[in-house]
Amino acid sequence: MKAAIFQGTRQIECQEAVKPSPTNPDELVMRVVRACVCGSDLWWYRGTSPRPAGSSVGHEAIGVVDQVGSRVSSVRPGDFIIVPFAYSCGVCPVCKAGFEATCPNGGFFDAGEPGLGAQAEYMRVPLADGTVVMVPGGRERARGFSDQMLDNLLTLSDVMGTGYHAAAMAEVKPGDTVAVVGDGAVGLCGVIAAKLRGANRIIALSGHKERQDMAREFGADDIVSERGREAVDKVRELTDGWGADAVLECVGSRQSTATALAIARNGAVVGRVGVPHDEHVDAEETFYHNTGLRGGPASVRTWDQKVLLDAVLAGSINPGRVFTAEYDLDHVAQAYRDMDQRTTIKSLLRVSQV
Amino acid sequence: MKAAIFQGTRQIECQEAVKPSPTNPDELVMRVVRACVCGSDLWWYRGTSPRPAGSSVGHEAIGVVDQVGSRVSSVRPGDFIIVPFAYSCGVCPVCKAGFEATCPNGGFFDAGEPGLGAQAEYMRVPLADGTVVMVPGGRERARGFSDQMLDNLLTLSDVMGTGYHAAAMAEVKPGDTVAVVGDGAVGLCGVIAAKLRGANRIIALSGHKERQDMAREFGADDIVSERGREAVDKVRELTDGWGADAVLECVGSRQSTATALAIARNGAVVGRVGVPHDEHVDAEETFYHNTGLRGGPASVRTWDQKVLLDAVLAGSINPGRVFTAEYDLDHVAQAYRDMDQRTTIKSLLRVSQV
Repeated sequence: MKAAIFQGTRQIECQEAVKPSPTNPDELVMRVVRACVCGSDLWWYRGTSPRPAGSSVGHEAIGVVDQVGSRVSSVRPGDFIIVPFAYSCGVCPVCKAGFEATCPNGGFFDAGEPGLGAQAEYMRVPLADGTVVMVPGGRERARGFSDQMLDNLLTLSDVMGTGYHAAAMAEVKPGDTVAVVGDGAVGLCGVIAAKLRGANRIIALSGHKERQDMAREFGADDIVSERGREAVDKVRELTDGWGADAVLECVGSRQSTATALAIARNGAVVGRVGVPHDEHVDAEETFYHNTGLRGGPASVRTWDQKVLLDAVLAGSINPGRVFTAEYDLDHVAQAYRDMDQRTTIKSLLRVSQV
Repeated sequence: MKAAIFQGTRQIECQEAVKPSPTNPDELVMRVVRACVCGSDLWWYRGTSPRPAGSSVGHEAIGVVDQVGSRVSSVRPGDFIIVPFAYSCGVCPVCKAGFEATCPNGGFFDAGEPGLGAQAEYMRVPLADGTVVMVPGGRERARGFSDQMLDNLLTLSDVMGTGYHAAAMAEVKPGDTVAVVGDGAVGLCGVIAAKLRGANRIIALSGHKERQDMAREFGADDIVSERGREAVDKVRELTDGWGADAVLECVGSRQSTATALAIARNGAVVGRVGVPHDEHVDAEETFYHNTGLRGGPASVRTWDQKVLLDAVLAGSINPGRVFTAEYDLDHVAQAYRDMDQRTTIKSLLRVSQV
């Protein structure tokens, strides 16, 4: 089969690889229909974080179940599924509490293990019963899905669920004024999530015209294009000095985290999903403002099952709009380059027909 | 009138002071019936934090309304009230969101301003309508209260509300396994709060026999007397390795915070109320465990009005048990010394008859 393989900094190649099989009875193998490139892939693509050469890549995909191990009971070949970016047992106290992306029995597809890469024609899914999200109706129904619907479903493997995690951790509730820090695909999905949870007013922090437009399309009422101290002043000004009732931190840098904490109303929670790089939290400052900080790897499966899959199937949200360029697997190198150079918000990979 | 005055490190004196009057129409003056010494008073008593010599002290009291300013409409002379440790406007977005102890229009009674000290025969209460909690029935009913009931009501000015804030911020819910870090009066009230919110199992971290006994009396099922790494191992062992569903941090030191974060189940929230001293939060570690951190100065008025006053008046909780020694104002110096030397959990000051 074809698979995207990391060869070194800024080198991704589409290569021939061995098609995976279930390595134990709890696994399944999925034929990938759509995959994509994640903002977090850029960390190792750019050499900012380490990754072994020769490793398979990608952690976002939807597709058709191809083979199941003997103990897999929740899906069977022909079912149409979403694979979240992390696999999880589904039965431990952490999973039961709804934090399956930090399940101690699970792991990340991005870890580079053979066969787990989602940017490939087939991928292996460990702990299948605790991991995948089934789209009702199987392959038969999925054949009728528009490209737009498939794009929307693909975002439920990561970005839409991650944006929703930020909003849920920030406890966005009806009537809130919500600020979203970060205009990548996750931040834009955070805008959708805030709207879905009933926010009354959404302030998106974005310095890029194309992303500002999309944020508005997704429900943002105000755009703050300033950064740092000026962004804080602007959000404070927009909220009569009080700050936002809930803040979504979708970047993970030191500056973005400081901004997020500084624009939170006293007592508000900063829901964070940006993978932290050199973050710093002032424990006294947050204490004296009763500012909460909560989040981490997103509970994609939980949010898909509770709210997002229904919202996508009903056509009430269109997160697939974040894919602004598409490629086939042979052109995966270009898909990365365009993300790296920010000429696309998020790169879609069309891998096979439903 | 008599009032406790700070004169320098480890020097508190009962002195004659001018009886306060309302300095503006929003204020009231309360005749203090009971006051007490707080663990946080020890920070400046010991010279760990600065405080001007000659300042009035104390921030926890109950009593009878003596005088009201012309704009005070919620209470009148003769009403029996609880004064939380912070004053607040009651009408701004921060107060409306239930975080009145960080109200930008308010402040702390402990700030040392003339007349605001609660360890005195009379105290001034700014922003009275947004601050005080009225005990229904006024002085007439209060005359019938037992000493135990008065002690219980006094804890609603700070420690019981603060313990409850920790439990609420940690999102303690029915069925949870809850760990409480800190065996001061606030930590012990945290045990009561966890029980009140339906915790199934409460693990109290305490190294002192008298406090362990009281924690058990308040509802703790397990006591962990170890500290640091060993305490973490013990709590993990007691929870089959998973950690607690909710953690209350009631100390505020670097070690206690590290312990609290390390014993939290992935996805759990550490509710913190210990005034931070040299706290440090590892932003990456908490991210990868989806550990939340939330809290600050407690919403005493909110929790009193929502749940605690009813629970005390109904006799369902007895937080006043934390007062293990009592004094009159003339002996306030001894009240501090005994707290400082940990020969009492919390010192009660009997100031006047109802």
